[in-house]
Amino acid sequence: MSSIADVYRKEKGNLIVLSGPSGVGKGTICKELLRYYSDIVYSISATTRKARLGEVHGKDYFFYSKDEFLKMVEEDAFLEWAKVYDNYYGTPKLFVEEITSRGKDCILEIDVQGALQVKERKPEGVFIFIVPPSKEELIRRITCRGTENEKEVAKRMEKVDDEIALLPQYDYMVENDNLQKAVELIRCIILAERTRIHNHKK
Amino acid sequence: MSSIADVYRKEKGNLIVLSGPSGVGKGTICKELLRYYSDIVYSISATTRKARLGEVHGKDYFFYSKDEFLKMVEEDAFLEWAKVYDNYYGTPKLFVEEITSRGKDCILEIDVQGALQVKERKPEGVFIFIVPPSKEELIRRITCRGTENEKEVAKRMEKVDDEIALLPQYDYMVENDNLQKAVELIRCIILAERTRIHNHKK
Repeated sequence: MSSIADVYRKEKGNLIVLSGPSGVGKGTICKELLRYYSDIVYSISATTRKARLGEVHGKDYFFYSKDEFLKMVEEDAFLEWAKVYDNYYGTPKLFVEEITSRGKDCILEIDVQGALQVKERKPEGVFIFIVPPSKEELIRRITCRGTENEKEVAKRMEKVDDEIALLPQYDYMVENDNLQKAVELIRCIILAERTRIHNHKK
Repeated sequence: MSSIADVYRKEKGNLIVLSGPSGVGKGTICKELLRYYSDIVYSISATTRKARLGEVHGKDYFFYSKDEFLKMVEEDAFLEWAKVYDNYYGTPKLFVEEITSRGKDCILEIDVQGALQVKERKPEGVFIFIVPPSKEELIRRITCRGTENEKEVAKRMEKVDDEIALLPQYDYMVENDNLQKAVELIRCIILAERTRIHNHKK
């Protein structure tokens, strides 16, 4: 016997888009969410950049050559794609659709421009913008990561103001002042969105 | 120095409307929320019904005479009001507005028809419909409460189907199968709604 709730419950899972400026901690937040909550599936991105130490193909990213990537672009296989600092990044469409059609939530960690490209194709997604406590804290974090040189850090910082200006196009804003607090809040957003009434739009 | 998040954060608190059929447990859920979370303020309703044992004026309800109540109706002092089983019930407008303008969330526990009246005046509110696991369970709960006779229970049950048909007008649906689970889920909805981006509508 199906319950009253089942009638109105969404059959499909949600696409959760976690975005924000570089260095805001979206990668760490995403990892923590996946570590604690087995009911969320990570949307694996495709990239042409070289794998960092410990990164695994098909787990952290799908690592492709530029030729392979551009062939997929031609085949319209991406929900979004972009060239960032000489490398291509993209979100394989089929992967996300397979997960959500099984009723599972799929989480996508992506930069601001990419998120808004996804929104054009999947406006029903849940768009979360992660903000740093301040620009100063963001610079500190990027510098500490040590994967980028001074010129690259400066290039990234130039983009921050432009990115924050796009915040009003998102659904939710979570400040990453404290990692655990941010993770719990995003968990709440994910759970709350599951209880949204089917076909209901404000 | 104001943080980046402060710029986009809502200044006003949310009006959280907790609704659902009679006997679904919205009163118990509301009490639990208020017991554990001191950052939510209970919207005290006005009524002309007699106080039950232990109920306090200005805490559980504002208890008014019929004359007093109808005078307030004339003065447009209610967000909604209704006559239910020979008694009047209403939500004092000013009380809710004072709380939310101080940046606090205000929670309103109300029947289905009342909630939709509130929605007409406050469409920006967060409307949560609590559903029972089944109609059979709802009958069991109402009967167990023992505050109503058989005729009154039958009268209430007649309304249930009509009330559930109004569910698609709500934002969220929470099944009250397990009290603690329902309370935690509603807590999540409340927290998630606080992170919604100012002025953003899907």
